[in-house]
Amino acid sequence: MKTKTSGIIIIGDEILSGMVKDTNSAFIIENLRDTGVEIKRILTIGDDIDEIAHEIRVFADRYDLVFTSGGIGPTHDDVTIEAISKGFGVETVKHNTLIEHLRKIIGKEPSEIQQRMSLIPKGAEVIADKDIALPLIIFRNIYILPGIPKCLQRKILIIKKILGQGLSATVKRVYVNDFESVIAPILNNLVSNNKHIKIGSYPTMDKSDYKVMVSFTGYDKDELDRLVQHFVSMIPNDKIVKIEI
Amino acid sequence: MKTKTSGIIIIGDEILSGMVKDTNSAFIIENLRDTGVEIKRILTIGDDIDEIAHEIRVFADRYDLVFTSGGIGPTHDDVTIEAISKGFGVETVKHNTLIEHLRKIIGKEPSEIQQRMSLIPKGAEVIADKDIALPLIIFRNIYILPGIPKCLQRKILIIKKILGQGLSATVKRVYVNDFESVIAPILNNLVSNNKHIKIGSYPTMDKSDYKVMVSFTGYDKDELDRLVQHFVSMIPNDKIVKIEI
Repeated sequence: MKTKTSGIIIIGDEILSGMVKDTNSAFIIENLRDTGVEIKRILTIGDDIDEIAHEIRVFADRYDLVFTSGGIGPTHDDVTIEAISKGFGVETVKHNTLIEHLRKIIGKEPSEIQQRMSLIPKGAEVIADKDIALPLIIFRNIYILPGIPKCLQRKILIIKKILGQGLSATVKRVYVNDFESVIAPILNNLVSNNKHIKIGSYPTMDKSDYKVMVSFTGYDKDELDRLVQHFVSMIPNDKIVKIEI
Repeated sequence: MKTKTSGIIIIGDEILSGMVKDTNSAFIIENLRDTGVEIKRILTIGDDIDEIAHEIRVFADRYDLVFTSGGIGPTHDDVTIEAISKGFGVETVKHNTLIEHLRKIIGKEPSEIQQRMSLIPKGAEVIADKDIALPLIIFRNIYILPGIPKCLQRKILIIKKILGQGLSATVKRVYVNDFESVIAPILNNLVSNNKHIKIGSYPTMDKSDYKVMVSFTGYDKDELDRLVQHFVSMIPNDKIVKIEI
């Protein structure tokens, strides 16, 4: 088992203008963690077909998995499918399974505009599941997801099943009631001696009981435990607020 | 007056791992809107010095303004300043004004580790203001901001003053209780005849009273009004839930 690198592309002028807040990237991160997916980059771009085409191609080459969110509805600003086709130089074609699903949802023959939602980049896989209204579209290593949070969330749960259990990291947190600059020398020393464990230091100004949350992230639980104990032993007892494991 | 294009780079493994949620990009977008700043791209990357160096350079070349958030504390994972220096091939140097401010905050001579927070890419501008604990650092067209939301927010308000009033767009919204695929032909027609006004269509599954929010964004208010009225006249009266101006 190993981790899979991945990137998320959030597509939509509405996010860049602040009209809609992106909650999808956080949902993807949280829900795919147990599958061993490690997010390396999140990009938010507008509804520009060439920009989307270029960036999706770059992400697909660079990461094991890519998740796109947004731009797959029936209107003028929904250009993700065309952009992917353009990026990979394939045709955009209608898919029968998708037309059938549209028929069921609408209750009659979908109009020409509604049939836009049956388009896929030629060669894409279409996976239907009883828990989602419209099938999941996967093109190469790209999972093409809708922007509407409820629809995306259902599809992410299907993807979670497809990916299965993967190697996921354990996180331990220590909350310290001292300034970051005071504990920084200790952290710097730990970092240079522990290449396998990622150490994060997150100061806050909002909490009355602690000033810094220090996180330790790694794959070997015993190694993690030893390092956390070592760190705690170097901080005065009364400065340790709590240890979360 | 014209709008300024800009890009935001959120720096930090903690965002990619889902440990901390990014609220900074939304704050920047909302608060700089009146200054005429138009966000074109938001990128979230980890604490990797070469990746940060490369991306900041790309953003600085492509957009009028760049805002970075995160990676400017005293610990090992705070590499934004060094990354900017690397990207532009300049030295990283200590700045006296910043050392003085650190002295005031800490109440004594800052330690070597604490002095890391006085580093700037050589040639950067350092702007002190009574409302912020540590001065604002600007290198070329890059506004270098902290990751801690409260600190970032105070600096954004200073930047707002510096940038002044700019040409900002007006948004009008119409809430329609009909499926997006039904109104899509009307929208597609409006879009092809109105190049100056951006039309957005945002379906929702969460609201009981409407199915789609249609937004109209533009700089000429009269033109906007006419288009909104034209759109509303093409939708059956009982399907219009409300108009927000």
